[in-house]
Amino acid sequence: MPRTSDGRERLIEAGVELFSQRPYGSIGVAELCARAGVNKGSFYYFFPSKEALALAVIDRHWAWQQGVWAEILNGPGTILERLRALFAATAQMQIDARTGTGWVAGCLFGNLALEVSSQNEPVRMRLQEIFDEQIELIRAPLAAAVESGELQRPAEDVDGAAKAIVAQVEGLVLFAKLFNDPAHLDSLWQNSLRLLGLEPVNAAGMANAAAMAKE
Amino acid sequence: MPRTSDGRERLIEAGVELFSQRPYGSIGVAELCARAGVNKGSFYYFFPSKEALALAVIDRHWAWQQGVWAEILNGPGTILERLRALFAATAQMQIDARTGTGWVAGCLFGNLALEVSSQNEPVRMRLQEIFDEQIELIRAPLAAAVESGELQRPAEDVDGAAKAIVAQVEGLVLFAKLFNDPAHLDSLWQNSLRLLGLEPVNAAGMANAAAMAKE
Repeated sequence: MPRTSDGRERLIEAGVELFSQRPYGSIGVAELCARAGVNKGSFYYFFPSKEALALAVIDRHWAWQQGVWAEILNGPGTILERLRALFAATAQMQIDARTGTGWVAGCLFGNLALEVSSQNEPVRMRLQEIFDEQIELIRAPLAAAVESGELQRPAEDVDGAAKAIVAQVEGLVLFAKLFNDPAHLDSLWQNSLRLLGLEPVNAAGMANAAAMAKE
Repeated sequence: MPRTSDGRERLIEAGVELFSQRPYGSIGVAELCARAGVNKGSFYYFFPSKEALALAVIDRHWAWQQGVWAEILNGPGTILERLRALFAATAQMQIDARTGTGWVAGCLFGNLALEVSSQNEPVRMRLQEIFDEQIELIRAPLAAAVESGELQRPAEDVDGAAKAIVAQVEGLVLFAKLFNDPAHLDSLWQNSLRLLGLEPVNAAGMANAAAMAKE
């Protein structure tokens, strides 16, 4: 097969797909090549190792997810509307995965963090950066909302809440994956309001919550 | 080597140790036998497969952890003192692991949930039961505290909070493992108070929190 950059692309796409579905350790170079339609010699032309492909897969998936998060979190609407839209998008990704493959995929970064972080230092370092960026993507608009008076919470509470919310997402995604049921993400909104020190609202309480944040 | 039940015990202990430190998929029967000082023939006398050992390892680890949780959560003290003691014990386990091995072990059940739950149905089913039991171990004393008037929260809030707290533990343990730093668990107490709909308190605020719960 020709060693075109198309082969590199196909290997990254095969990696995103396979590493999202099964344990990293269970997927060999041969299977990645077969899925990508690339021969083994070409694999090592593009990537020195499976780890090198994994890093490219992580970067590709984060570039995509970061784009989704930033578009929502830095977009229009109140801060609580934007957070709620982020959680809806997060749940929808798991619903789509389950519809498409029969399985809740979970979080590729969380999966790799628990499986390989004690085994693979470059992957561990990259995942640390990504989780720090996730927390910052939530923290910055929360801090701006405090600054503008839209959200009446102490600034230091908001810093802690951003990390607590990302941890809550990871914990509930773990349940969604273990039970193969995206409905475990339904409580993300109410739990996040509580982590922000806001009173829980009922499912129809978006307007209440926004009003509460401004009160 | 003699096929005594001592060999079975040593295999389970080797499994608890190795499965806590490294990915399930990276550990073969040969390594488990070497660690346990048991030959391969004896392994298959005790366990038909690595999966069968994994189930015994999960049961052993849960019997121990369930004992620790139940002793604390059903023990003396206010409900908030007991919850705080549970989080302190959780953090101490990770501190001890790091001191002993250089690495935060994380949660054996969380690790296996993300690594093998889409690959191994018996393990997935058993882990579902364990997480349901963890949530119930926290929910029951919270509900009793609501019943007695010690904790003034709506009963339905407490049910959701128990699950949110277990998810928060799993998310923060993921960070502790990824960053190899048990300090990520320090916010567990404050975050859990918020998930219970109680105002956050400062690090010295145990008495305040208990008073708040009773007010």
